[in-house]
Amino acid sequence: MGGSGIVIIGIDPGTRVTGYGIVRELSGQVSLVDAGTIRTNTKKPMCSRLGEIYSRIAELIKEYSPDEAAIENAFVASNPASALKLGQARGAAMAACAVSGLVVSGYEPTKVKSNLVGSGRADKSQVAFMVERILGVKNTKWANDTTDALGIAICHLNERRFAKVAGR
Amino acid sequence: MGGSGIVIIGIDPGTRVTGYGIVRELSGQVSLVDAGTIRTNTKKPMCSRLGEIYSRIAELIKEYSPDEAAIENAFVASNPASALKLGQARGAAMAACAVSGLVVSGYEPTKVKSNLVGSGRADKSQVAFMVERILGVKNTKWANDTTDALGIAICHLNERRFAKVAGR
Repeated sequence: MGGSGIVIIGIDPGTRVTGYGIVRELSGQVSLVDAGTIRTNTKKPMCSRLGEIYSRIAELIKEYSPDEAAIENAFVASNPASALKLGQARGAAMAACAVSGLVVSGYEPTKVKSNLVGSGRADKSQVAFMVERILGVKNTKWANDTTDALGIAICHLNERRFAKVAGR
Repeated sequence: MGGSGIVIIGIDPGTRVTGYGIVRELSGQVSLVDAGTIRTNTKKPMCSRLGEIYSRIAELIKEYSPDEAAIENAFVASNPASALKLGQARGAAMAACAVSGLVVSGYEPTKVKSNLVGSGRADKSQVAFMVERILGVKNTKWANDTTDALGIAICHLNERRFAKVAGR
């Protein structure tokens, strides 16, 4: 938390689309560093798609040197097969963070929503609206995965602040 | 498939224990290269455990330069929460293979059993017996995860041979 503030990478993992959002907090002001999606080629075998997720996350960490990472806790799918797939994408992303030396905090989707919007039942457009507002950007046309990842990163910044104030 | 034959790494992933087995086939003879388990510290956060799985697999690949990888297809757990966990371990292991340039083939547990023992309902001790016999080793006291991983590697060697004979 020196002069350059604190940088967080938020990740919303998925085998098809993984959203990422990198934000910086400096003197209480949150700003956007980078955000986007990692779209894997669905025609490629799963192992290379997971390798792609790993490599892209590792590259982003190398480029922006975030201090901490935050990831969406997989909402527990009713279907074990989709839970397994989602777990694989999560595992590749989390391994990339850990190998790069980052601690990863997990947040439930409802936690992110209530943290940003004030209600755990907020919809994606409300999260997107708050993300743009907090970052002071407009009409970004970000994909849901991107705003979700930014929402996770901002939620983590807020939680860190609460934890600090509470002396935890 | 030169003078040094073909080397396969088999992986039986798990968040607590990941088994690995590396075998070489040379002139139709299968031999043991290395085998063991990666046991993660259950007191550590999940992200560092996944990072450990990734790093150890990447190290093994660097050390033994396998030509191909084979992994157990997660048996679809009835419980989505355990499917997610298993998926994470699988994702970390598969990403390590892919980033190291290996293609990963997946095999159902029943496939491995029928390939080695002749019945998809064989129990773990029968698989262990056949693995030791094929590799020409005795009283190894390997963990189940280790023999399972070796079984997967041997199954993959057999499947490759079948595919070759069949001209696939």
